[in-house]
This record gives sequence, structure tokens and C-alpha cells, in this order.
Amino acid sequence: MKTLRTEVAVIGAGTAGMTGYRAAKAGGKQTLLIEGNVYGTTCARVGCMPSKLLISAADAAHMLQAAAGFGVHAGAVRIDGKAVMARVRSERDRFVGFVVESVDGYPAEDKLHGHARFLSPTRLQVGDHTLVEAERFVIATGSTPIVPDEWRAAGTRVITSDEVFYWDDLPASVAVAGTGVIGLELGQALHRLGVRVTIFGRGGSVAQLSDPEVLDVARGAMTDELDVRFKTRIVKVEPQGDGLAITSEDTNGDQHTEHFAYLLSAIGRRPNVHQLGLENTGLRRDHHGIPLYDSQTMQCGTSAIFIAGDANDERPQLPEAADHGRIAGDNAARYPDVKPGLRRTPLAITFTEPQIATMGSGYSELCVSHAGRFAVGKVSFHNQGRSRVMLQNKGMLRVYAEYQTGRFLGAEMIGPRAENIGHLLSWAVQAGLTVDAMLDMPFYHPVVEEGVRTALRDLAHHLQHEPAHDCPCVDCTPAP
Amino acid sequence: MKTLRTEVAVIGAGTAGMTGYRAAKAGGKQTLLIEGNVYGTTCARVGCMPSKLLISAADAAHMLQAAAGFGVHAGAVRIDGKAVMARVRSERDRFVGFVVESVDGYPAEDKLHGHARFLSPTRLQVGDHTLVEAERFVIATGSTPIVPDEWRAAGTRVITSDEVFYWDDLPASVAVAGTGVIGLELGQALHRLGVRVTIFGRGGSVAQLSDPEVLDVARGAMTDELDVRFKTRIVKVEPQGDGLAITSEDTNGDQHTEHFAYLLSAIGRRPNVHQLGLENTGLRRDHHGIPLYDSQTMQCGTSAIFIAGDANDERPQLPEAADHGRIAGDNAARYPDVKPGLRRTPLAITFTEPQIATMGSGYSELCVSHAGRFAVGKVSFHNQGRSRVMLQNKGMLRVYAEYQTGRFLGAEMIGPRAENIGHLLSWAVQAGLTVDAMLDMPFYHPVVEEGVRTALRDLAHHLQHEPAHDCPCVDCTPAP
Repeated sequence: MKTLRTEVAVIGAGTAGMTGYRAAKAGGKQTLLIEGNVYGTTCARVGCMPSKLLISAADAAHMLQAAAGFGVHAGAVRIDGKAVMARVRSERDRFVGFVVESVDGYPAEDKLHGHARFLSPTRLQVGDHTLVEAERFVIATGSTPIVPDEWRAAGTRVITSDEVFYWDDLPASVAVAGTGVIGLELGQALHRLGVRVTIFGRGGSVAQLSDPEVLDVARGAMTDELDVRFKTRIVKVEPQGDGLAITSEDTNGDQHTEHFAYLLSAIGRRPNVHQLGLENTGLRRDHHGIPLYDSQTMQCGTSAIFIAGDANDERPQLPEAADHGRIAGDNAARYPDVKPGLRRTPLAITFTEPQIATMGSGYSELCVSHAGRFAVGKVSFHNQGRSRVMLQNKGMLRVYAEYQTGRFLGAEMIGPRAENIGHLLSWAVQAGLTVDAMLDMPFYHPVVEEGVRTALRDLAHHLQHEPAHDCPCVDCTPAP
Repeated sequence: MKTLRTEVAVIGAGTAGMTGYRAAKAGGKQTLLIEGNVYGTTCARVGCMPSKLLISAADAAHMLQAAAGFGVHAGAVRIDGKAVMARVRSERDRFVGFVVESVDGYPAEDKLHGHARFLSPTRLQVGDHTLVEAERFVIATGSTPIVPDEWRAAGTRVITSDEVFYWDDLPASVAVAGTGVIGLELGQALHRLGVRVTIFGRGGSVAQLSDPEVLDVARGAMTDELDVRFKTRIVKVEPQGDGLAITSEDTNGDQHTEHFAYLLSAIGRRPNVHQLGLENTGLRRDHHGIPLYDSQTMQCGTSAIFIAGDANDERPQLPEAADHGRIAGDNAARYPDVKPGLRRTPLAITFTEPQIATMGSGYSELCVSHAGRFAVGKVSFHNQGRSRVMLQNKGMLRVYAEYQTGRFLGAEMIGPRAENIGHLLSWAVQAGLTVDAMLDMPFYHPVVEEGVRTALRDLAHHLQHEPAHDCPCVDCTPAP
């Protein structure tokens, strides 16, 4: 076993690890980047990029059906599953290639391969070959899709989003467990590509939404198109022929057993903090085993250990991971003189159709932080002019603002162009705009943004003429 | 001839006239709304709405071809021209219906039908039936597509955008004169719907663009897909069989004569100010015959006459017309105590694909107002991640900012989601954001907005490290 000494050790070479490494280097520190797996980020390899590639194909397939509404008929549509997956994989490989190229550009002496495990607050064992002694650490180990052991036992037909993008053809059928971002994005995309899909949700949640009215519309939009079964649990998964026999149970206790080629487990991702020997660091940890850390500095307690990206389970998205990593790497270099880094206004997008976006403070958060002090405005996209022109007139936007100041606080939305509206409104939050200032902004015609204006006008009316919004429940979490 | 007396007379019941009427009424004045034509705005009847309906159908037809790139294959595509036009017309009629319904809701005594003509600064003749004596006036007479007399002489196959949306089927071929917003939007849409289209441009302009680099990319994008002939003039139009023989001449003097079913004249719109008897008002007018007016108050000189919407030829768009009308009506009511109204940051969008948007100050404007004091950043969408995922990786964005302050000034763009980027960036201009503040904003992944970030980073670099942008020509107008 050889011993390496370094000023900063970054554990994990994904998005957070790479920005952490670069920031620590930019801070003038000797830095070692340790990766236990292949290079390439979750985003590029099995996350944002390949999922959007699959979704683009799915949207094209959907448009072939929807075109008839305009008087344009597609004839006998043929979905070439092999070609669909070939494009997904080749473009994915291209994006991964860029990442690997970046890592290849780092000096060889800055990189070490192997799984890292803390032996003490200043010492790691990497694989069975190296001891690393470092002054400061950045934990950027990412996350892994959760698969319950009893499902895993049913064999290789139980998969996660990690496996989908390695398919070389589309399967006949897929059961999806989970109505979160990944379950809905992949479930809808596969459905649109001709795969028989059923999505099972234990509760009534839809992606990252918390606003009960938006949730209602979202559940309706999803069940209109897809076989989504809310409040239905998968209770048994058994191998059956080439696939699986999946038994589900609804709230009445009624059970159904159906055959699917695959079960896609999309019930969540678990931060990779359990094989790290964190018990040897002396860090205080929460009940998920994640070290307590300051979300402005990424510092764990007052230690020289920082945690960034999916590993801290705060906002598991690429842009956040990049910010986390930058802050953690910068502060690792500055330690002990750490300082708050740039945290941006929250923005989360789900690339279903209609798209889902949440920006700034969400509804459930406001019911805690601004109870009795915020107003709500809304618009339905059902009759919104441009949305209707595009035959995308489904959805709802709810917008929130503070009494007295009129400051815009945030929004939740399902509807057309939510990814773009998400940027517009999260920027408005971060710029500190009031609702009146937003209504003074340009709105073209005919655009989906005019729907935003309708919601803002409603919000302005509520701010002036109505009492504060009354949160409908004590803890304001979506109905179970 | 009967005589009516009113405090405010609004001439024209289009978008500007309707908001002008409502603002004058809200200002407490007795107001008469005079319309010489049918009710219904240019936008709803022959402008933004029906064109976007046609474009939505065209985009659907285009997707049927583009889908193959994703592995999704349409069969024998059939474009049902009658169904396409039926949807355009029925949805158009629905939008017009809303407008007419609004006007129907105005009290009958507030409305008068007939063409209005000033007899003096305080008196109008309307039709051959009524004299209107008013204290204050709002001119909101709109605009009309220009058709040269020598084309008009070739008969009814020479048309304008006014006629297209009354078609009940798609024609076999259309020659389009003009590479402005209307010519390109309609020309591309008809092409995508299977009509043989040639677009003739006398110069090299593309819609509202003025930035030479964006113009270059835009010309390339248009000629890649469409038969656009820049620097080519239509020199003769003659009836031929069911259609027209159209002779064009390029810069070499070479002439070609081709047959088309229609010639769509999209060479511009002329403000409707020439039948108004403005010579009897004493107002000073420019060389187009438009009264000189203050663009903050809409007041013509110090008179009690205000001018709003397309009639003043400033920014012929619905949102501007609505603002103009509101300001003009409000100030007509306040006269002589007029005050500046809300003018928003300029935003103009052309709904071609790729879309075209200009926001804030344009390039040619900055070469005058900020010569030697602004920097330019840019991004090509050719390799922009999300654009590539969607197979919409065509286009360019150029962004402008001021030295010293770092204030963001504006942008010109052709590329994916330009309508949405247009809102984001025009809001940023109006909010007075600096480039650094914009770079601190949230950018999701993978989104087209990341392309904006690339351009802003380039801009920030130029602001810090490069000399001021050198405008390539004296007057900075696009090459003729």
C-alpha cells in the first residue's frame, strides 16, 4: 500500500467533483481527484442528457399523432426502436466523451482510481492500494437509484434509469415504480414510443410539485394520456417467462397481477455516503447518514470536510451540483477562512409534456415561511391563446407574492414551455422584482408568456383586494 | 347630415383604438369610437393569430419529416389543405369573435360607423351621414399592406396577408415578395405545407435583424430550407392562365420568368393616414405623412390629437398598439395635462423556424447611440447541447452590454425558442441587470438558455479584456 499526500482530496469525479477539483486548484492547492467508477457524470451518462434524447424522440412520435389536429396526417407511423436507441446512445456517448475529455486533460498525478473510505478525519484508503493523507476533503460521491431488495431478488428485469440508456431496442412493456421526475419523464417517453407502460405511484405526488391546485391539474394531465395509477403500491415482483409478474394493490386493498417485460424502479436516489467510512470522521450526520453541512459554504460542521452535489441530497440537479462543487472546492482551498458561495434561486424542471417547473419558493415552503403573508394568483392554460394555437392548451400556473412589499416569491407550473417560463420567473425572483414591475415588462403576442401575465394580474388583484392566502392544511404537503 | 358632440373621438376600433377608447372612458370622458370597416383587430383577423395557426400546422408537417432523425418514421404523409385552412379560419373566427364581443359590450351610443375625415382640428366628417365635433382625438387607423399599382394591375392573383387567411384550400404555388417578418413567416409556413414557394428579397434583410453576423446566419438558415432569392427584384407581373407570370431580375441583370398561382405582396405596410384629412388639422407631418408625435405621450405636437398603433408606424405590433392606445386615450382624457406613459423595452419576434427575436437595443441602434462604448458576446447554436438534442441546432445569438457599468443593453437572435429567450432578455434589459448579475441567475440543464449563458460569458470576457466593439460600417445598416 503506497501513501500519497495532498492538500485537497476530492472524492468523486462527477459534476460536483470536477468543479470542486477545478475550484480547489484555482485556489492554489495541490488537489487529488479520486474516482471509484468510470469517468463521466450521472447527468451525461444516465441522467439529463440521455433522458432528453429519449424524450425528443418521444415528442416527435407524439407529434405524428397530434399533427392530425392541424390537418396534417402522418400515415402509418413506424417507430424504429433500434434507431431511436442508437441515436440516444451515440449522442449520449458524445456528451460523455466531452466529460471524459475534460478529465483526460487533468494532469495524471492529480487523479487516482479506486473507492475511497475515510480511516480518520485526515486519511483515506483508496481501493486496496493507496493511503491518501490530505488536509481538506470534498465529498462528491453522487447518488444511486434505490431498488428495494425484494424487487432486486426478481432478477435482471428489475432495472433503474442507469440501465435504460444501454438498451439497444425498445421493450414491449415497462412497469414504472414512482411518479417523481424520473418515473414520469421516462414513463411518458416510453409510452409515446409505443411501449406499453404503467406507472405506479404510492401516493398522489407528481414530480416536484407541492401546490395542491397545480397537483390536481398535473394528475389529470398525466392520467389523461398515461396509465398512471396513483395510491397504488407494488406488493410483489416475480420472474415470469421473459419478464416479470407484478402485483399491485390499490387503497381498497384490491390486488392485480400483470406481466411486464421490465420493472423500472424510479422511487428515488440514495446519496452515496454509506461506504465512505464517515463514522471515522467524527462528523455529525442526519438520520439518512448525510453529514450536517452549511448550504452556503458546503462545510461539514467546522471541519475541513466539504460535501457537494447529489451526495448531500439537497437539490439533486446538475446546475446545483456544479455550484456546490465550486463552493466546496473554493472553500476547501480557503479553509479555515470559508465564505458563503453563490446559491441561486431554486429552479427545477421536469421534461414531461406538459412540462413541470417550480421556481423560487414553492407553495409548501411558503405555507411555512410566509403563512398568512402571501397571495396566490393563477392561470389555466386551457384557453390561453397561443397554447391553444399550438394544441398544447393544458396546464396551470400558480404564482406567489408577498403582502406589503409586493415582491414576487415563486411559482409552480405544469404547462407548455414550462422550462422557459421557469427561467423567466426564477430570474424575476432573484432580481427581486415586484409583481407590478413584472407587469410593466414586455409581453409579446401571441405567446405562452401572456398566460404568465394573466396569472400575475390575478396575483396583483389578490395583493390589493384579498386577504392573505389560507393554506389548506397544517403541513401543506400534498395529499398522501 | 347629423351632428354629434363628444369629448373624445377615437378613430379606428382596432387594438389601439379599443384600448384608447377604454382609457379615455376610464379617464371620465364621453368617448366616441368610430370604425369605417368591420370590427375585429388586424392581429386577430389577418395578423398574429391566423399566421400562428398556419405556422403551427406547418411546424407539425415539418416535424413529420424531421422525426426520421429520431428514428420515428411517418408513413405516406397527407396534408389536407382544406382541413388546415378550416382550422386556421375557425380558430381565427373564434379569436375575432372575442374582439367583436368586446366591442359589442360597449354602449351603442359610444359607437359610430363610417370613414372619418378631419374637416378642422375639432371636427370630423364620418361617412356621408355625420359631423362629429370633439375636443380631443385619438387617431388609431392602423395600417394596410402595400401593393404596387403595377402588381395590382395583374389582377386578383396578386394578394396580401389579408387574403391568405380566407383561403379554403392551399394553392399549388406562391411567390412571396419581401423577406420581412410577414413574407418569411408565411413563405416558410406555406412551403412546409407543401406549397411551392419562392421568396424574393430586394436586398439582404431578414425580418427585423440588424446585426451583420446574425443576419449572415439567418440568411443561411433560410436559404438552407427555402427558395429565398436575396437581391432579386420582381420586375414584371402578368396574368398567365390561372395564375401569374412573374419575372425577376438578380444583381447581374439576369431575368427569369416563372409561373405561380399567386403573388403575395409582403413588402411592407403603410399607415392609414392618407384619407384622414390631416391637412385640415394644422399638424406637422413627416415625409410619410405621419403627424409628428411624442412617443412617450402619443401627443401630436401640442395639439389635442393623439396617434396610436400602426398608424404612427413606430413598432407595428399588437402589444405596442395596446400600450399606445392606452397612453393616447389616457392623455386625451387628461389633455392638456398630458404625461408620459409606460413604454416597455422593445421586443420583436418573428415566428419562423428558427425563430428570430430582437430585444432591447438592436445592433444598428447601438452603433449610433453607443458607438465605441459597447461590447458584443455571441453563441452559435450549432453545438448547443439541448438544441442539438432537439435537432434544432441552428442559429446565433449576439448580446450587447455597456462598458464601465456592465449593463446589459440588448440582443439579436435567430435560433430555437427565440420567443422565450426574447422575453428573458428583454426583461433583463428592463430590470437594468448587469451581465454579471445575469450570470449569477439560475440556468437549468439541458436547456437552450445555457446557450444564452455561453453568449453572456463571452460578453463578460469582452467587457473585461477587449476594446469596445468596432461597428463595421458607418451607418451599420445591413448590406443592401
